[in-house]
Amino acid sequence: MGDTEYHRLLGIGRSAFQGLEDHLERRDYDGLEYRHVSEYRRGVERGTALIDGDVVRGFPKVPRTLVLESGIPTAFDDEFVVEEKVNGYNIRAVRVGGEILALSRSGMICPFTTRMLERLVDLEALFERHPSAMVCGEVIGPENPYTAHDYPDVDSLAFRAFDWRDRRSGDPLAVRERRSRYERFDVPQTPSFGFYGIDEADAVRTIVDRLDADGREGIVMQSSDGTMQLKYTTAASNRDDLAYAFSLPFDYGQPFMFRRLIREAFQSVEWAESESVARERAHDLGEAILLSMRESILTVEAGETVGERHTVRASPEAVDVLFEHLRGQGLHLEIETDRREDDDRVVTFCKQTQATNDRIGNYLAGRVVEE
Amino acid sequence: MGDTEYHRLLGIGRSAFQGLEDHLERRDYDGLEYRHVSEYRRGVERGTALIDGDVVRGFPKVPRTLVLESGIPTAFDDEFVVEEKVNGYNIRAVRVGGEILALSRSGMICPFTTRMLERLVDLEALFERHPSAMVCGEVIGPENPYTAHDYPDVDSLAFRAFDWRDRRSGDPLAVRERRSRYERFDVPQTPSFGFYGIDEADAVRTIVDRLDADGREGIVMQSSDGTMQLKYTTAASNRDDLAYAFSLPFDYGQPFMFRRLIREAFQSVEWAESESVARERAHDLGEAILLSMRESILTVEAGETVGERHTVRASPEAVDVLFEHLRGQGLHLEIETDRREDDDRVVTFCKQTQATNDRIGNYLAGRVVEE
Repeated sequence: MGDTEYHRLLGIGRSAFQGLEDHLERRDYDGLEYRHVSEYRRGVERGTALIDGDVVRGFPKVPRTLVLESGIPTAFDDEFVVEEKVNGYNIRAVRVGGEILALSRSGMICPFTTRMLERLVDLEALFERHPSAMVCGEVIGPENPYTAHDYPDVDSLAFRAFDWRDRRSGDPLAVRERRSRYERFDVPQTPSFGFYGIDEADAVRTIVDRLDADGREGIVMQSSDGTMQLKYTTAASNRDDLAYAFSLPFDYGQPFMFRRLIREAFQSVEWAESESVARERAHDLGEAILLSMRESILTVEAGETVGERHTVRASPEAVDVLFEHLRGQGLHLEIETDRREDDDRVVTFCKQTQATNDRIGNYLAGRVVEE
Repeated sequence: MGDTEYHRLLGIGRSAFQGLEDHLERRDYDGLEYRHVSEYRRGVERGTALIDGDVVRGFPKVPRTLVLESGIPTAFDDEFVVEEKVNGYNIRAVRVGGEILALSRSGMICPFTTRMLERLVDLEALFERHPSAMVCGEVIGPENPYTAHDYPDVDSLAFRAFDWRDRRSGDPLAVRERRSRYERFDVPQTPSFGFYGIDEADAVRTIVDRLDADGREGIVMQSSDGTMQLKYTTAASNRDDLAYAFSLPFDYGQPFMFRRLIREAFQSVEWAESESVARERAHDLGEAILLSMRESILTVEAGETVGERHTVRASPEAVDVLFEHLRGQGLHLEIETDRREDDDRVVTFCKQTQATNDRIGNYLAGRVVEE
């Protein structure tokens, strides 16, 4: 297909498409050439991919509110659904050219997830019936190469659908229709807490409290027609993120850390915490920051290295393509354990975080800081 | 004097000076035109000023160590002095064209400090004897327009000399010579804790502990010849800074906050804190961050504004030139109280911090965050 056709699929003009082309990254997946929008933000969603003459839309950025009470009526006109936001990595499963592919947030075909997908969920019947569906979901569980978070009911890896969109237009299904279709096709979904009115921030707060107590990430709210989304996270999740980021303080961005600190403060105020409850929150926050950094400094001082540690369990071939994929992105991997279990290879590896290892080492050695 | 002469005073080539000229800011003080290096960092110190055919060197950036034990032998070959780092604002007093002027860190003539200086310290005899002296010191005390920090022995405003340099070359006096000269001319100085060898990090640590317990800022170490400097701050000071910065979270830079968090972690490790002491430190840190933000959000929620509050006590004329000077820098001031005491005007004012007021207000009103 000539490029002149893509602009129609994307619903933009010829010249807008030409402007977009400079921002497209060209990649190859198993001999299939494709291009994707890894960062571009004007007009076309980040993560949009052009594959084989066809278009896969990016998943839209979900706005966040810092205050439920005022944020909910700002975002919604009417009833909205509250669903759990699960903590893993975002993928979009689509069928292009007869093959089911899993695309990452940035629009790369993830060779690992693409191979694992059929183990996690059977999407054949769904795509037979709805060929242009885009199954948007999260891959969760402790044995994944991107974000490891424990869920009591997930041993290795699992899939949870949270949205259903048209692959070409990006239009979402209405929430009730989406949930019933996924049920029909036996696709696991993120839990729903039901529908609420825009004056029911207190009820939403109760859900968040429960998730917080369970150490879960938070919620995504969505208008019934699926077009408007709004997210909100628990203190437990903000703090987990902070602890992780501060364990690798020179590799994580300061805006990442700062945003989470801000969330804590607004939550404390909205929830009208007493002085002593706020102080308790402050202590937990301080521990997330300081004890994590301290642990990493002690590790480097002891001559060891810090980094992002992951375990994956997959076919030997899936592990191979994963490592190739990660190294192709310039990551340095250190294999820590590598064993066979039945037909699977189970590998624990560490993504080296060079900035943190180097800078901690330098400061411990007495390097001065110009400031 | 033609510009061609300045390059000789600065000890750089003609073409280097031409390169510098684009970075010079042109200002006027009471009809005296001058230029200064407000940000330039290559070759010529920030804060260097060209006044009336003469040169006033900037005060060099003082490097910091995050670890005393390794930082001290990295910075010094031999004995070094430990002096208190006092918390106020840095000025350089020089006599140019017969007049004693006070220059700020960035090389601006501060009209307020210039007028207050003679109240704080008599430098006439010093400049008579040493016309090219640059008296480097800190203006401290609760009644100043830049950084208000309490010292038990300072009611309003005081001056503490911490360095003596040649105004043109920037060369420092040796430490013992500097201290004895200031004593001779009756100029108040920052306290000295004496000289130490490079293997005496433990003794330095004891000084820092004592300052920390008193809520003081920290120390500056200096080689005996005065050429090499190294600073180190107390946990109390890091936390005070954090509490202040997080009370105005959208006006203070994230790097400012991040650097202080890092300092806390390295100090905790170097001081080999037990788990429980480190946890205590983490709690104090968390309070500095969260409770300060919370307080500001509560203030904005109550319809009030947050900002940097200062009190000054000076002659009506000095107060006038101060406000003109601050407004000339684009600051918005709100006068809160304004009264006369004897011949002085005592004014409490607030420098509005617009970003923090606006963003807190917006988030409280439900504005979503795109992230």
